[in-house]
Amino acid sequence: MDLNDLTRTSGEWLKAAGSEADIVMSSRIRLARNLAPFPFMSRADDEVRSDIERQLRKQVTALNADGGLSYIDVSTLEPLDRQFLVERQLISRELADSHGARGVAVSAGENMSIMVNEEDHLRLQVLRSGYDLDGCWSEMSRLDDLIDARVNYAYNDQLGYLTACPTNVGTGIRVSVLLHLPAVVMTREAQKMFHALQKIHLTVRGLYGEGSQAMGDFYQVSNQVTLGKSEEDLLKTLKDVIPNIIAYERRVRTTLVKDNRASVHDKVSRAYGTLRSAQSISSEETMQLLSSVRMGVSMGLVDDVPIAKVNELFLHTQPAHLQKLKKSHLDSAERNTARASYLRQRLAT
Amino acid sequence: MDLNDLTRTSGEWLKAAGSEADIVMSSRIRLARNLAPFPFMSRADDEVRSDIERQLRKQVTALNADGGLSYIDVSTLEPLDRQFLVERQLISRELADSHGARGVAVSAGENMSIMVNEEDHLRLQVLRSGYDLDGCWSEMSRLDDLIDARVNYAYNDQLGYLTACPTNVGTGIRVSVLLHLPAVVMTREAQKMFHALQKIHLTVRGLYGEGSQAMGDFYQVSNQVTLGKSEEDLLKTLKDVIPNIIAYERRVRTTLVKDNRASVHDKVSRAYGTLRSAQSISSEETMQLLSSVRMGVSMGLVDDVPIAKVNELFLHTQPAHLQKLKKSHLDSAERNTARASYLRQRLAT
Repeated sequence: MDLNDLTRTSGEWLKAAGSEADIVMSSRIRLARNLAPFPFMSRADDEVRSDIERQLRKQVTALNADGGLSYIDVSTLEPLDRQFLVERQLISRELADSHGARGVAVSAGENMSIMVNEEDHLRLQVLRSGYDLDGCWSEMSRLDDLIDARVNYAYNDQLGYLTACPTNVGTGIRVSVLLHLPAVVMTREAQKMFHALQKIHLTVRGLYGEGSQAMGDFYQVSNQVTLGKSEEDLLKTLKDVIPNIIAYERRVRTTLVKDNRASVHDKVSRAYGTLRSAQSISSEETMQLLSSVRMGVSMGLVDDVPIAKVNELFLHTQPAHLQKLKKSHLDSAERNTARASYLRQRLAT
Repeated sequence: MDLNDLTRTSGEWLKAAGSEADIVMSSRIRLARNLAPFPFMSRADDEVRSDIERQLRKQVTALNADGGLSYIDVSTLEPLDRQFLVERQLISRELADSHGARGVAVSAGENMSIMVNEEDHLRLQVLRSGYDLDGCWSEMSRLDDLIDARVNYAYNDQLGYLTACPTNVGTGIRVSVLLHLPAVVMTREAQKMFHALQKIHLTVRGLYGEGSQAMGDFYQVSNQVTLGKSEEDLLKTLKDVIPNIIAYERRVRTTLVKDNRASVHDKVSRAYGTLRSAQSISSEETMQLLSSVRMGVSMGLVDDVPIAKVNELFLHTQPAHLQKLKKSHLDSAERNTARASYLRQRLAT
């Protein structure tokens, strides 16, 4: 797979297709798996890591899943390309920053990716546009079975799947939904909502995972622990909660349009105008303004940009994407200029 | 003269013609004159005011000056129309707000206006686009002679022309130049410059005269007193100083483009983008953003708006102009919406 080909496309998960796509950017399920014959990564020396990688690379590229997977050897990538894959949510920052033999297998539409030698030997990911946890889960079950048929998973009858980190032991599953909540953020009720979610053992993080700030009003809601719970239990917890968050965001948007239509329209329209006219713009400001525009599109206040294009701009204006698009290394000031130029060109009417 | 016809045009002085029109909006000369047979305004009762007005209305409309003058009876205008004339610089706020018989005679291109029963019986004004004090002065001399031939001016051999306010006694002349100084304002050197001007008895005021804030980075520089100085002396003082101010503004602009081209371009471009996209915008913000755009046009950073159009927008987005254009009375919030809509329409590409 040539990474440069990816710059011309976006993953399926950005297409704003699927249920509730105005509020739910994407649904994702991740499984952590390890190979029984090998030690966990923390105990694997370079040679063992290479062994694992060689074996898994062979197995995952042979899979007949999601139209077939292309393998990318992450250990030989330069930092910019690793960052590029992180921005696309195809690999974790941990995989990007670690060392030794490691890689990722990616399906053509980027709905499926399999990380090799991250925290666990295998990290399977299924990603879908909109709110579609059931779709993710059935796809993931198939993928998990396909791999299970080819390798010997580390599994214990009492504990379930064994993983490097105890929080993943059991099912090794992480179910998460990426939500765009600009109206809730505007009401300053967001923190209260997130505290309530923590009480039922759900985690709220920003777009790029743990520690990342919730830029552009994007929040990932996911389960915290897996031990002692079945996949179905965990899915159910999310499926009980997410519709309420969606309904809340939708309710606040309706109230905003009813009570403050003029000022919301003004805010959205100015954001759009700034994106189309700035000559220099940071990634943070871009995400904040795109967030307003995205909400405006959903509310019918902006009519000449499809939401899929806004989603794509969130991705394409990230630092590594920008540099891949411009085919050169850029410092921060150069990126701000390139980002503004790219936005003007993409949003020109 | 039908005021509604004026809404479709702008005065010649906004056409950005003439010398140094990128920095000098307009040049203006005003003369204060009184009729010998009548008391000053402060001592004139309603009947006397009516007498003066009747006589002067007859004389000024008979003048063969600047293609002939149309007379507007200010006493019968509703407040909105009076405000409209103030915004066009055809009458002073004092004339608008006073009472009794009063009016103004205006030439077709609005380069010439004659107020009747302001602080003095007569206030003659000649206004020209760009830096053209000599043009103003020769036009004004002709006008003054034409009127002098028809009425009996209050004149004293020792003091000169007698006026209601002692600061105008002598020549009764006020020479002023309206400058657009965004770059000087940006350097925060403006106040220092204005203090220096005060030391040589020049006054610095905002666009709409005494007490008005310098909105949109516009400053009127004019002489403070007239007593004991000839018209030529006063003209010379201004003609010595103004070119230095122009040169200073131009120097700062050059430095800005040289040292901070990217950030100035960004500021200008965002201002233009906001003007083209806001759904609600105050008069103050409009003037500030138009000021940036006006500077940008002069610097070659904005290329699709002529400077005359920017000048016109400064005028047409004023509260009374906006209401005349929309043909209805609007409260502040309605004006902000109407202003934004008007700007979007006028600046649509």
